[in-house]
Amino acid sequence: MTKRIDLNADIGESFGPWRLTDDNAIMDCVSSVNIACGGHAGDPDTIVATVTEAQARGLGVGAHPGYDDKQGFGRRVIAMSTREIERMIAYQIGGLAACAALVGAHIDHIKAHGALANLAARDADIAGAVVRAAQAVAPEAWLLAIAGTEIERVGEKAGLRVAREVFADRAYDEEGHLMPRGTVGAMLTDPDFIAERVIAMLEEGALITESGRSLPTDIDSVCIHSDTPDALAIAQRVRGALEQASYAVQPFSRAAAA
Amino acid sequence: MTKRIDLNADIGESFGPWRLTDDNAIMDCVSSVNIACGGHAGDPDTIVATVTEAQARGLGVGAHPGYDDKQGFGRRVIAMSTREIERMIAYQIGGLAACAALVGAHIDHIKAHGALANLAARDADIAGAVVRAAQAVAPEAWLLAIAGTEIERVGEKAGLRVAREVFADRAYDEEGHLMPRGTVGAMLTDPDFIAERVIAMLEEGALITESGRSLPTDIDSVCIHSDTPDALAIAQRVRGALEQASYAVQPFSRAAAA
Amino acid sequence: MTKRIDLNADIGESFGPWRLTDDNAIMDCVSSVNIACGGHAGDPDTIVATVTEAQARGLGVGAHPGYDDKQGFGRRVIAMSTREIERMIAYQIGGLAACAALVGAHIDHIKAHGALANLAARDADIAGAVVRAAQAVAPEAWLLAIAGTEIERVGEKAGLRVAREVFADRAYDEEGHLMPRGTVGAMLTDPDFIAERVIAMLEEGALITESGRSLPTDIDSVCIHSDTPDALAIAQRVRGALEQASYAVQPFSRAAAA
Amino acid sequence: MTKRIDLNADIGESFGPWRLTDDNAIMDCVSSVNIACGGHAGDPDTIVATVTEAQARGLGVGAHPGYDDKQGFGRRVIAMSTREIERMIAYQIGGLAACAALVGAHIDHIKAHGALANLAARDADIAGAVVRAAQAVAPEAWLLAIAGTEIERVGEKAGLRVAREVFADRAYDEEGHLMPRGTVGAMLTDPDFIAERVIAMLEEGALITESGRSLPTDIDSVCIHSDTPDALAIAQRVRGALEQASYAVQPFSRAAAA
Repeated sequence: MTKRIDLNADIGESFGPWRLTDDNAIMDCVSSVNIACGGHAGDPDTIVATVTEAQARGLGVGAHPGYDDKQGFGRRVIAMSTREIERMIAYQIGGLAACAALVGAHIDHIKAHGALANLAARDADIAGAVVRAAQAVAPEAWLLAIAGTEIERVGEKAGLRVAREVFADRAYDEEGHLMPRGTVGAMLTDPDFIAERVIAMLEEGALITESGRSLPTDIDSVCIHSDTPDALAIAQRVRGALEQASYAVQPFSRAAAA
Repeated sequence: MTKRIDLNADIGESFGPWRLTDDNAIMDCVSSVNIACGGHAGDPDTIVATVTEAQARGLGVGAHPGYDDKQGFGRRVIAMSTREIERMIAYQIGGLAACAALVGAHIDHIKAHGALANLAARDADIAGAVVRAAQAVAPEAWLLAIAGTEIERVGEKAGLRVAREVFADRAYDEEGHLMPRGTVGAMLTDPDFIAERVIAMLEEGALITESGRSLPTDIDSVCIHSDTPDALAIAQRVRGALEQASYAVQPFSRAAAA
Repeated sequence: MTKRIDLNADIGESFGPWRLTDDNAIMDCVSSVNIACGGHAGDPDTIVATVTEAQARGLGVGAHPGYDDKQGFGRRVIAMSTREIERMIAYQIGGLAACAALVGAHIDHIKAHGALANLAARDADIAGAVVRAAQAVAPEAWLLAIAGTEIERVGEKAGLRVAREVFADRAYDEEGHLMPRGTVGAMLTDPDFIAERVIAMLEEGALITESGRSLPTDIDSVCIHSDTPDALAIAQRVRGALEQASYAVQPFSRAAAA
Repeated sequence: MTKRIDLNADIGESFGPWRLTDDNAIMDCVSSVNIACGGHAGDPDTIVATVTEAQARGLGVGAHPGYDDKQGFGRRVIAMSTREIERMIAYQIGGLAACAALVGAHIDHIKAHGALANLAARDADIAGAVVRAAQAVAPEAWLLAIAGTEIERVGEKAGLRVAREVFADRAYDEEGHLMPRGTVGAMLTDPDFIAERVIAMLEEGALITESGRSLPTDIDSVCIHSDTPDALAIAQRVRGALEQASYAVQPFSRAAAA
């Protein structure tokens, strides 16, 4: 039986004249993409261009909503109620879905971005806001959740199809939480080590913590950051290692249907 | 047989702390509303609140996209390609549809706003951008077009269901075009005169020009501006006159289904 | 010897097509105004129009910077470093000063707005950011600070000319802090009670707490909110009471020079 | 006697997480910089960082205001009155000047950006709006104008100190106008040809048209675009050629004072 896994990355984070990542090169490595929705990044032209490329490659097309704050790139918490967050997220998913419709595509999954994703990972109320928005706007879409977090639990309880992701290039502490960006050792940079750890996590069905401990979890997707200096080299190395280990790299949203 | 007509107004034009019109009072007079989509006005909270009220009253719910320019309120032309306009409009319709979905509502019709509406009325390319966006995002929705304009023709040709509106409080020149806002006599202000002219246009099935000439046209809806000083008095007077003349005032989008 | 006091209010909080308060009526009651700088509200056209009216009435012209967040009206905390806040505030003060220069006016004072003002009242680092921005951009201007707060102390220590304000229509707790907006009794609404309390605070040179206790403080200005339902009636009542009690109502920024 | 010339480039065109050009490398080649003011690009943090670097290198610090439209990067005309443009420009210059003041710097010159610059080059009313804003906000600053255009004439008539620039990498038609960006041959790309043409224009004191004709003009500065693919190579080649030809490359704003 074929082993399957999805690789996902955040793309479409251009805005007007500005580009952030080499989206085409990243899209050649991954099987699902999370596309900025015009909140923390992205605009209608960027969305259409990005969805078009993703669709041409047969990638899973995801909405990647976040705080409506381009200057802060969705990485600053803004004091908002959960209802306000729910509406903001719904609006962004709807905007992206509409631009996708212009080129005959639809949303396969939804994943929260940045500061909002961090809150939704540990706060069930914020997670609920994202889940309600997803369910109202794209009830057929998957929710892509960080494995072992509140949003995974809330999404499942609400009846959404939930995929669980681990991070290729981020260290986990002993409780299985992502170590904060600022912390020494939080960001992994050695492509070989990263690729080996990804394979190990998949084979064991577990997060591997900084000390090497295994914390069992279901894993449907591996997230590769697209905005780190060696993002592309890491993505290519992970992809290569997966293929060598006989994994079929394909969108979780379609594997399930197969 | 019952005579039917729709009354429509632009609402939901709040933003953050700011209000523009007395939406609840206007909603008590009309049968369809065109709700700002977060481009020239509106935000997700305003959209949800406005759709909720419109739905509770059984009104036709319309998306009212425009230039993405709150400071200019969508009344300033911004140099954009037709493709850029198409995507901008699609995004806004999708954002509004998603917020409507949060409260179990959907879009009944689409109507362009402000400077964009003026361009779409006389330029087939711009009209095509609006029509393509509408068709891709909300193919079941009606297009509400100014009677006798390019967007009416382009929408029909594309196979959209098109409703034609006349303006209660704006003068028509001898070619049937709206007289520009700046012109003397362009804005009608006497509620009695306005109500009489509306009835006359409906009875004759024609625009009535400034000189009193009749230009035959189909009329499905009468637009009442909500941001003129006496908007509410005018709306109430027109509504009263219609009921007195035995018109059933109801959403064009539902009358057709009846 | 003449008793002098300043009355101040927040105005210029329009944006594009939207108005918030009846600025001209408010300006007829107060002696100093705090004008939104294009961050939480305001735009270059609004600023020029507002400064022009303030100048024509001989009012003290103040910059009223806040979070750069119109949808949230500067009332939502956004996670930013103190350096980022300092630069944001400097930019806004500079923008307002430039628009004032177009009509030959200059900034008499600076007062922080909304969530930023609340933070600066109790956090010396945030207060320092506002003070540094004020000092770099408008070193001759006064700082208008809530009496008894961190920003008063930080501003004085930095060598700024500091004016202290009390609130006409807000209750003080027993430590002399403003009771939070949500709290029962936090917002005073009876014009007679408000006017009497203002006179009492000025006569005693003290904040008067909810229980009636006096907490001595210097008072250079009395703030009247312009966005409460009866703002204008309250402003007129306070102004009348002050004149009856023989206070000369004039800008603190000019009284000092007299 | 030393021959002097200024080299200028547009920089500071970052926004939030996004970078556009390699500003530090460009700053090592030029003598004056035009820094985005938060309208078409830039934000307070970017402005402070850019001014700091420019000041450390002894470069002329210029404000580079444009349409308040980041998505369109100031390259889209927005329908605005000349008064609205004047206020928008004033606000931006003031915002940049204030951020410069935070690091003890001031504005040496002002240059219009993008679609606004194009309009100001040929329309005396728009030119007047820019000139009035400059004069009110930074009366001591120079105006950097495209040689031979309306804004040069309007600025001089108003009494501003005006510097005239030619473009290193853009072709001139036979009337001395810049050939539009879309036109074949409008953008020069060969560093050697560009450098030779720059020297020729300076030696002759003339624009050199596409056919090789000389149109006499005063030249105070040479503009090098920073956002073309080989911008840096071109800048370095031009700088080298100027030094070889014994030109002292220094800010026009300071050369005049020497």
